[in-house]
Amino acid sequence: MTDEMVKGLGERIPASLPNVLRDHGLLVNTAVGLYGWGAELETVYSGLTKALSGEVADKEPVELHFPPVLPRAVFERSEYVASFPHLFGAIHAFQGDECAHENLEQSVVKGEDWGGHTRLTDFVLAPAVCYSVYPLFGGTALDGNRTVDASGFCFRHEPSTEPGRLVSFRLREFVRIGSPAEASTWFEDWHGRASAFVRRLGLTVKVEAASDPFFGTSGQVMADNQREEGMKAEVVVPIGDHSVAVASVNYHRDHFGRIFDIRSADGEPAHSACVGFGLERLALALVAAHGPRLAEWPDGVRELLWSGRTTW
Amino acid sequence: MTDEMVKGLGERIPASLPNVLRDHGLLVNTAVGLYGWGAELETVYSGLTKALSGEVADKEPVELHFPPVLPRAVFERSEYVASFPHLFGAIHAFQGDECAHENLEQSVVKGEDWGGHTRLTDFVLAPAVCYSVYPLFGGTALDGNRTVDASGFCFRHEPSTEPGRLVSFRLREFVRIGSPAEASTWFEDWHGRASAFVRRLGLTVKVEAASDPFFGTSGQVMADNQREEGMKAEVVVPIGDHSVAVASVNYHRDHFGRIFDIRSADGEPAHSACVGFGLERLALALVAAHGPRLAEWPDGVRELLWSGRTTW
Repeated sequence: MTDEMVKGLGERIPASLPNVLRDHGLLVNTAVGLYGWGAELETVYSGLTKALSGEVADKEPVELHFPPVLPRAVFERSEYVASFPHLFGAIHAFQGDECAHENLEQSVVKGEDWGGHTRLTDFVLAPAVCYSVYPLFGGTALDGNRTVDASGFCFRHEPSTEPGRLVSFRLREFVRIGSPAEASTWFEDWHGRASAFVRRLGLTVKVEAASDPFFGTSGQVMADNQREEGMKAEVVVPIGDHSVAVASVNYHRDHFGRIFDIRSADGEPAHSACVGFGLERLALALVAAHGPRLAEWPDGVRELLWSGRTTW
Repeated sequence: MTDEMVKGLGERIPASLPNVLRDHGLLVNTAVGLYGWGAELETVYSGLTKALSGEVADKEPVELHFPPVLPRAVFERSEYVASFPHLFGAIHAFQGDECAHENLEQSVVKGEDWGGHTRLTDFVLAPAVCYSVYPLFGGTALDGNRTVDASGFCFRHEPSTEPGRLVSFRLREFVRIGSPAEASTWFEDWHGRASAFVRRLGLTVKVEAASDPFFGTSGQVMADNQREEGMKAEVVVPIGDHSVAVASVNYHRDHFGRIFDIRSADGEPAHSACVGFGLERLALALVAAHGPRLAEWPDGVRELLWSGRTTW
């Protein structure tokens, strides 16, 4: 890394070349699908964090933040393995004695696959933030609806050279848990609210019917069903020549209510819906649209992200 | 989770009972060594983040942020496995076909140890933030010294019921890389600077000679050597009946310079030193010392963390 690379933002980034971000020191490359980031991009993230708080303020949510790690017991219960086995990350650790340590170390030095020297721990990486939310309401009958504003790092094992597809990334999720009517209203409302927010960032927005990346041939059937039944939509923006989903709106019906034993006042499994925003993708789309100099972004966008801030 | 648990901070927390934090909704418990946190604690973290930026501003560091995940190649090169095999977390993923998926899923449903159905990926969890920094300078001869202000989540596999000992936690590290004289000056300077900062937070501070938790019987010898040679010190504060290290100062000599091929202008391996602050432990110590109502914290502490902020 040279001082050139981290000195800040240079010339305007061609819309077709988001990779140029790295050359401008907005990102530092550490490996496929992993980036460090500098002060400018952190300013964009904190602006987005604040602006998103404004979007959900009228719903008076409980604000919760979660570490990047999820208890394995919650993960196993969530049925994630059934649908997305190709995406999760399980945390393994060495749990042997000094002799076993010597074998592990030799295996590492020789460049072997040393995974067999470790064992599954009680922890996995969080595949989405809302998986940390549902268990908090587990085993209860809600006396009304619940709204949670949840933040955290997520992991998905899909190494890629696309700058918008990271293995480790931040999600901001607004989760609603309650009656079927409340959950489906949340889902419908946030189609418009999420796309309006992204549009106010000065981005060209489309809302598209979508499906989750279910695994295998039976997964294709599930994805088709999800799309047909209109259970998922994505807010899509252009980044260079690509279309990238920066937010998604999801209706789960009673999936998580059933799994985590959350009941509505009437004793039936609660329904849930959530809207999730990908902070890294939003930031990337902003830089692709408005260029790398934050001070030159459109007034309305700067007001939305950094109202009150006067110096850079 | 009840509304009571998340409504905010209640009565003053007895100094001997930091666990009460959970009952006050400052933390929500998700598993051993893992907590979610609410708006109040996030306010403390952002105050600490800002205040720490002020501490290092005169050094004009490059600010870098890293994801919680580290490339496995960097980890293997770092020699972490030799010294701390009991602490790292390696990320495994399922990489099989539909038949293998069925076997994995059955293993999960039966409650078996399903680790054998996954394989080591190219990613591990970051055990410290500075491991993401050194490779950025790898293979270069520095024309001077480098100062990096690095932030990120770290993982250490030491599940514990102590609220100050988390498996997933945030570190803020100020790293200096350069000549032996520059690195050792950094190390000496930050004994005083780090403890002065923590004292300005209204905490009772001791600086103690310390050692890293090296593994095994030969590790004990390494720890004794490190302590005798005065290579590590910790800033320790009381939390209830415990003494907890909230910051550490470390001199690595040419350890990382040698490993990552970073050279000084004279062609010799560069030396490095770093000071690291544990945000969760600092926040816990603040609440233990000043109580759960942020608005009632001493004026000087509130000024340091949130200068300019007037409402809560």
